[in-house]
Amino acid sequence: MTSSYSLAVVAGDGIGPEVTDQALKVLDVVAQDAGLTFERTAYDLGARRWHATGETLPDSVLEEIRGHDAILLGAVGDPSVPSGVLERGLLLRLRFELDHYVNLRPSKLFPGVPTPLADPGDIDFVVVREGTEGPYVGNGGAIRVGTPQEVATEVSLNTAFGVERVVRDAFARAQARPRRKLTLVHKNNVLVHAGHLWSRTVDAVAAEFPDVTVDYLHVDAATIFLATDPARFDVIVTDNLFGDILTDLAAAITGGIGLAASGNVNPDRTSPSMFEPVHGSAPDIAGQSKADPTAAILSAGLLLEHLGHAEQAQRITEAVEADIAARAGQPRSTQEVGEAIASRVAGAVSVA
Amino acid sequence: MTSSYSLAVVAGDGIGPEVTDQALKVLDVVAQDAGLTFERTAYDLGARRWHATGETLPDSVLEEIRGHDAILLGAVGDPSVPSGVLERGLLLRLRFELDHYVNLRPSKLFPGVPTPLADPGDIDFVVVREGTEGPYVGNGGAIRVGTPQEVATEVSLNTAFGVERVVRDAFARAQARPRRKLTLVHKNNVLVHAGHLWSRTVDAVAAEFPDVTVDYLHVDAATIFLATDPARFDVIVTDNLFGDILTDLAAAITGGIGLAASGNVNPDRTSPSMFEPVHGSAPDIAGQSKADPTAAILSAGLLLEHLGHAEQAQRITEAVEADIAARAGQPRSTQEVGEAIASRVAGAVSVA
Ligand SMILES: CC(C)[C@H](C(=O)O)[C@@H](O)C(=O)O
Ligand SMILES: CC(C)[C@H](C(=O)O)[C@@H](O)C(=O)O
Repeated sequence: MTSSYSLAVVAGDGIGPEVTDQALKVLDVVAQDAGLTFERTAYDLGARRWHATGETLPDSVLEEIRGHDAILLGAVGDPSVPSGVLERGLLLRLRFELDHYVNLRPSKLFPGVPTPLADPGDIDFVVVREGTEGPYVGNGGAIRVGTPQEVATEVSLNTAFGVERVVRDAFARAQARPRRKLTLVHKNNVLVHAGHLWSRTVDAVAAEFPDVTVDYLHVDAATIFLATDPARFDVIVTDNLFGDILTDLAAAITGGIGLAASGNVNPDRTSPSMFEPVHGSAPDIAGQSKADPTAAILSAGLLLEHLGHAEQAQRITEAVEADIAARAGQPRSTQEVGEAIASRVAGAVSVA
Repeated sequence: MTSSYSLAVVAGDGIGPEVTDQALKVLDVVAQDAGLTFERTAYDLGARRWHATGETLPDSVLEEIRGHDAILLGAVGDPSVPSGVLERGLLLRLRFELDHYVNLRPSKLFPGVPTPLADPGDIDFVVVREGTEGPYVGNGGAIRVGTPQEVATEVSLNTAFGVERVVRDAFARAQARPRRKLTLVHKNNVLVHAGHLWSRTVDAVAAEFPDVTVDYLHVDAATIFLATDPARFDVIVTDNLFGDILTDLAAAITGGIGLAASGNVNPDRTSPSMFEPVHGSAPDIAGQSKADPTAAILSAGLLLEHLGHAEQAQRITEAVEADIAARAGQPRSTQEVGEAIASRVAGAVSVA
């Protein structure tokens, strides 16, 4: 059987193109063996285009991208562009326009990975970060900018519709995992309106998943547990901003953002989902073959899983795991890491 | 010389009263030797009063408290009270009404303290958390509550006035420390209106403090550094909510919230400042003499420092440091810890 997919590739800024190249290399090896084809279209979006044309994401490009089966994204953002322009105008615009309401961020401490924690335990959890609401909606403003009378606001928007669908998705993921545990993270003792909507929604949806254990943590307390007892977590469901913060911390304790993959998923499949490393564009090391492409490669694995190729996704995870175990800390170039993982995948493929 | 201070004591809920007792014990020892008197008035506020009367902080009580020189607070909150009622109605109301715009949270890894980090380095920084603005203003609401059409908002309010005064305070604190380094933490690539107000303000105030080095981190990246390289921080200045999150993580890496002290400071001294441990009311261990009163005791030290008794404050810090070094991990009751620190302070006092 041959399945052909159309893939929109947004390599982006900084180390984005380098790590994306390696992810595509690994994807190709897996795809070839499984009789899958990925027809790629590269989209030149990011700092270069903005400087040249002032465009972040033209409507016509968005519509083209929308026609694909999936999106692979590298990283977006550059110090030469005012903070927020590319993040809001490109990355977040894609997440919002394509209704990526499940921002999926697995955190697993692979054997052999250095962690800053003295006694990390068995870290293996998934953060289901809401992706289309909360303080990320861009509903802020300012008056009297630059004067002593300036007032700036940011509005967090939360809807029963938006919270319920991501909470239900998180419950389903928790139910499919051996430990069946869901932790809601919010700050419902301060952000009482949004927080109580989240808490009530979790309580209501919990009735449909009686075999899932539920608990609640304030976001501040959650960071404590991520540092002192991360093995307690199985599935975390949380707001867009809290998810942003917690997943960087989660990445830090599981070997760094060089290893953290993510999916911006539209579970209803009404538009293509987008897969990207959690790390940013890291302009300080761009173009030097220093970036670790592992997170981008694992993101390609999440892409395969989302498209229904769990076995192929698993091959990528296993190749990464084997590569990490063999790393022993010696520095390798971006290409070397990509090739090492690609040949492990190829090896696994030819043996299989 | 005898100075007499009036102290409002709000012991609060859960472990609040236990740890406050020990803090007062230590305060008394230091005070006596230094010829200071603290006339205390205990305010019965918290869960018990709310259940009995429905009151969180009556206006008349607030006005009485306002008449004091300082406030010592234990902890507020109980699961029997709906989440947010006491936090918003009592604790945050005190912080807002008394204009505690500097929420001061020192983080220091004392020698001998167990930390979850394998290689913590020399952790010694202060978080200056804004205390009267941001997402904490209580400016949220909801419509169609409990229906599938519910919409809930939370508004973060930020003013040039409010940001500038806390930023200036943070710069002054940075300037007074040996490393003279200030890190602004925000999320100015997403929360662009509030974030740019913060960034512009830091840039502007920096001109007055040319000997202070300034850098910026997004809040997500800041959590990574707190896990991987906390020794890089000297003074952090940040928004109310980000400060809440970062200081719990900071507490976790420096031995836990049992050791983390804080001051809600009004630097203009137009109203009494309030000192409290960072930890909550911990109802699960309340009344069992299990709570560590160290954070409350260190908070009493911050209180002394605020009132201009830096030498007496230093005695408390040194006694705590010596006690911690002698702890060797054996469990002691709340009273035992309080007495051990009190007698070290007394010893230091009589030797001096
Ligand atoms: C680049 C930025 C807008 C983005 C976010 O805040 O979501 C990033 O931090 C992430 O976590 O994917
Ligand atoms: C109890 C709660 C309202 C409070 C806060 O969020 O500020 C606490 O977490 C703190 O850090 O002092």
